[in-house]
Amino acid sequence: MRQEDPVATHAAHAAPDADTRAMRRAVELAARGLGSTSPNPVVGCVVTDASGAVVGEGWHERAGGPHAEVHALRAAGGAARGGTAYVTLEPCNHTGRTGPCARALIEAGITRVVHAVSDPNPQARGGADTLREAGVTVEAGLLADEAEAGNAAWLTSVRTGRPYVLWKYAATLDGRIAAADGTSRWISSPESRADVHRLRAESDAVVVGSGTLRADDPHLAVRSIEGAVQPLRVVLDTRATVRPGARVLDGAAPTLIAVAAEADTRHLTGVELTRLPADEDGIRVDALLGELHRRGVRSVLLEGGPTLAGAFVAAGAVDKVVGYLAPVLLGAGPAALADAGIATLTDALRLRITETVRIGTDIRITAVPTATSVPTALKER
Amino acid sequence: MRQEDPVATHAAHAAPDADTRAMRRAVELAARGLGSTSPNPVVGCVVTDASGAVVGEGWHERAGGPHAEVHALRAAGGAARGGTAYVTLEPCNHTGRTGPCARALIEAGITRVVHAVSDPNPQARGGADTLREAGVTVEAGLLADEAEAGNAAWLTSVRTGRPYVLWKYAATLDGRIAAADGTSRWISSPESRADVHRLRAESDAVVVGSGTLRADDPHLAVRSIEGAVQPLRVVLDTRATVRPGARVLDGAAPTLIAVAAEADTRHLTGVELTRLPADEDGIRVDALLGELHRRGVRSVLLEGGPTLAGAFVAAGAVDKVVGYLAPVLLGAGPAALADAGIATLTDALRLRITETVRIGTDIRITAVPTATSVPTALKER
Repeated sequence: MRQEDPVATHAAHAAPDADTRAMRRAVELAARGLGSTSPNPVVGCVVTDASGAVVGEGWHERAGGPHAEVHALRAAGGAARGGTAYVTLEPCNHTGRTGPCARALIEAGITRVVHAVSDPNPQARGGADTLREAGVTVEAGLLADEAEAGNAAWLTSVRTGRPYVLWKYAATLDGRIAAADGTSRWISSPESRADVHRLRAESDAVVVGSGTLRADDPHLAVRSIEGAVQPLRVVLDTRATVRPGARVLDGAAPTLIAVAAEADTRHLTGVELTRLPADEDGIRVDALLGELHRRGVRSVLLEGGPTLAGAFVAAGAVDKVVGYLAPVLLGAGPAALADAGIATLTDALRLRITETVRIGTDIRITAVPTATSVPTALKER
Repeated sequence: MRQEDPVATHAAHAAPDADTRAMRRAVELAARGLGSTSPNPVVGCVVTDASGAVVGEGWHERAGGPHAEVHALRAAGGAARGGTAYVTLEPCNHTGRTGPCARALIEAGITRVVHAVSDPNPQARGGADTLREAGVTVEAGLLADEAEAGNAAWLTSVRTGRPYVLWKYAATLDGRIAAADGTSRWISSPESRADVHRLRAESDAVVVGSGTLRADDPHLAVRSIEGAVQPLRVVLDTRATVRPGARVLDGAAPTLIAVAAEADTRHLTGVELTRLPADEDGIRVDALLGELHRRGVRSVLLEGGPTLAGAFVAAGAVDKVVGYLAPVLLGAGPAALADAGIATLTDALRLRITETVRIGTDIRITAVPTATSVPTALKER
């Protein structure tokens, strides 16, 4: 592919940097859609003209709205002819609520498409083939890791058939989420608590258990983030203990109460309920995640207490951990994680730290299960 | 002090950088003595000639050996005449095992002395006055914070009358130091475990409780650090439960077993013992630290388990915390800290994070108590 005349050689040398810059920008644009595109992926697109100048940018903003390529092509107009489209995900080939993007790119006169990640969705696949058949040069894999990370929730949900689960906790350096008397306001810094609202805004659903509901009466909606799409607030409430008047039942965001099949819910009028199979430990995690997936939820922020988090860990259903560690020592009080079914060190859930950041007076640690620790799908699905 | 002719102005402008560079080097040199100078402080010294060129460096290497200034003056020889000495601590004025450094500086013809920290030790104080009386310019306070941090152990021991205590622990992200069945090898990475040997080498004493002794049979000596001075290994063993043959009793480093006044120690022959007052919780932390201080110990690395660490926290006797957090989740098993006498969040020990570093696959978090949290001395001392 590389030509040997000096000008082309120079171009071939310079091109990767320009390609990388454009794709990195597309990854940035994609992230703007986090929390509002489900059940679709986040996608970003940059269109350059025949000379390599950026002439259009776009991202998928919300499910049902135009795809990223369409936004970027509209911005580019006629300048797209003979140009390149950089897309974080392989352009779709199917006619859903919007036309297929492969066709739109061809019609706009795009002659080269660079996409980071190939589409794992059987319904959407084939965009690259359609483009090639129309004579468009197609290259895949540029910044694939970054684009994958940005789309982790959607890709996980496509590959495993359940939503992506981010478990968030705030604890002391000695791992406590509350003091011996139950006091926990505030262990973490205001900056950490604000950061949690960002996590909520980027998630389709926020899940807590009835224990947290009783202890904290949490609200779980997003505050102080302009334009944020509110997540679905989900309470795992096997015995339907939630009371009318709980803050989570207000109108700030939609709410779903998950109860056992036989729960008495006569006191809960005007509340959206789902009845799910339960065993002696309560509603099964796989049943909850299956139901949420069925409802279009692709990403879950798990904000529950230690027992619920333990159930998710035991079910192999934690894809990412975000811990806010406050420089505080207590020496007593509940630990961040309990009852995960791990009796000995060799059975521990091993993670890999992907980021550590000071946030206010705290430190935020992000980690993902190592390849050997995470099951690819729930055992019983 | 600033003169207005152009050359002098330039010098006055350039001087702070040269001063800072020289003092920073002196702080670095001082750190080489960590772990081998007690009961003396660590001190570094840089001597420049009249033109500002570095002509001598030195640090206090071991108690009984020459002070930093003497090493640096020896290296400088006649070039010190008319020059400046940068010292991390105010030069001493007393004749101990070595002559007073103030006198040595005067005799070498040094005309300016810059020291970072004034000597808080009443016996040594007065060096600056002696220098000034001899016509030497004396300036104090340059890089005082850095020099203080490097000498934290010694300064703390002078100010509080007890050794400086660094509590080190290794835990999972959920704060566990072992799994439910007690397995704990290895939670932290090889790099973290190697780093602990550095902490030991920089400490005068390493302290564990009898619980850790029974559970782990630890060795506690420094391995794999060339030239390291072995710390005193101290076991807080109220009832004298240590058995002959315990690894801590081998000849790799000195060992002290602290037992209650009435403990039966007939099975412990050839072992150095100290009998200390105990209450229902065991040997009192203040009594232990007082005895160690009496023996010249200025810095303690606390490697004990959760109960012993809790007793130190309860006694207000933790000056620094170094936590090695491994990206592992357990959900069960002992927490890093227990029984610190803290029942509610407002009584928590609040810290300030001073450093976070990735170390192997782990993260090392260093924190110190905030000003409002740390008592300046033990309550009953």
